[in-house]
Amino acid sequence: MKKIQLQRVAPADIEERSMEIIGQELGERVFPADQLPVIKRVIHTSADFDYADNLVFSAGAVEQGIAAIKGGCTIVTDTQMAFSGVNKRVLEKFGGKAVCFMSDPDVAAEARERGETRATVSMERAAALEGPVILAVGNAPTALVRACQLMDEGKFHPDLVIGVPVGFVNVVESKELLLTMDVPHIVARGRKGGSNVAAAICNALLYQASNNARE
Amino acid sequence: MKKIQLQRVAPADIEERSMEIIGQELGERVFPADQLPVIKRVIHTSADFDYADNLVFSAGAVEQGIAAIKGGCTIVTDTQMAFSGVNKRVLEKFGGKAVCFMSDPDVAAEARERGETRATVSMERAAALEGPVILAVGNAPTALVRACQLMDEGKFHPDLVIGVPVGFVNVVESKELLLTMDVPHIVARGRKGGSNVAAAICNALLYQASNNARE
Repeated sequence: MKKIQLQRVAPADIEERSMEIIGQELGERVFPADQLPVIKRVIHTSADFDYADNLVFSAGAVEQGIAAIKGGCTIVTDTQMAFSGVNKRVLEKFGGKAVCFMSDPDVAAEARERGETRATVSMERAAALEGPVILAVGNAPTALVRACQLMDEGKFHPDLVIGVPVGFVNVVESKELLLTMDVPHIVARGRKGGSNVAAAICNALLYQASNNARE
Repeated sequence: MKKIQLQRVAPADIEERSMEIIGQELGERVFPADQLPVIKRVIHTSADFDYADNLVFSAGAVEQGIAAIKGGCTIVTDTQMAFSGVNKRVLEKFGGKAVCFMSDPDVAAEARERGETRATVSMERAAALEGPVILAVGNAPTALVRACQLMDEGKFHPDLVIGVPVGFVNVVESKELLLTMDVPHIVARGRKGGSNVAAAICNALLYQASNNARE
């Protein structure tokens, strides 16, 4: 086997060292203090520095996300992958929980009956939740568009919408729509995003909420 | 609400349309026919065309992956996110299954006792599996390095290693190590990769295996 020279970094310190490297490579760029941990965590999960330019935050979005977490919010994801990526251990410390309705059999059945997409029915389920809600869309632009319609109709009042679907068909459009809405939002403008990005943003907010709680 | 002009594409046709767009944007570049669906699916999951340059295939890797799937292989992932992203429905059609040992309580317990990482113990679990195995590492370079050591010691004989960890510490090194190993591999060279990329590569192979099976 080829000898390779690994950096001697203890497993527990790898994340910290990674964040240092990301900070160095961001150089002299200045980001708002509350947004920086979100931007760095998305780069950490993708190794893609485009997110330093892509991510758009409505005023106070990070603060509102943290407040929702501290209020025991439900994080609604649009994929099982994003659900898997959210740090439920930290979320549960605040009395919150994560849910993904997309693969629920009754959501599929209702979508079939009504001739709707599962994304649409899932968003209606999300709108019916009690208590604070963070909606994290990393995959389905249809889900994001439906969520915007429900908000426009006054039927859905999420505390924060993380709009980071990825792809080539109606993805850019769905995110540009969210950017016009009067709801706290964090958006990855353009085609890029994904379930990993959605989960990373949730976790960045969760870790900031934990740090605040410790202070 | 702002009026947005959505492309009129039926939900069932969005993936096909996305793949067409990706094909158009790849332009006149020519890729081996068996590798192209893998490259396109990774771009589909990330909207990142860097993967057209990053992905490295050992000779026959796609064919060997498809053969493993048809032989009812176990796909071993290093994260729950990658596990979530693998299309288990298709995998099970071939008699295969997906597993992720990383969050098993007994893996954590054994790692603690032996002063090892969970990644190390997980790879030893993978090495002990019966039948064909595809190892898909999207996160932990320590897992990939340990897998290479076990292969070097003749203790682990995966049919294919998908080496696509993401990040900044020992990630590049772990992938360069895999590239020197005499084992079928698909590697995302450089820092980029992730659980979503690992799952996308598995799914690209699964769909090719399904298409073959239908022919």
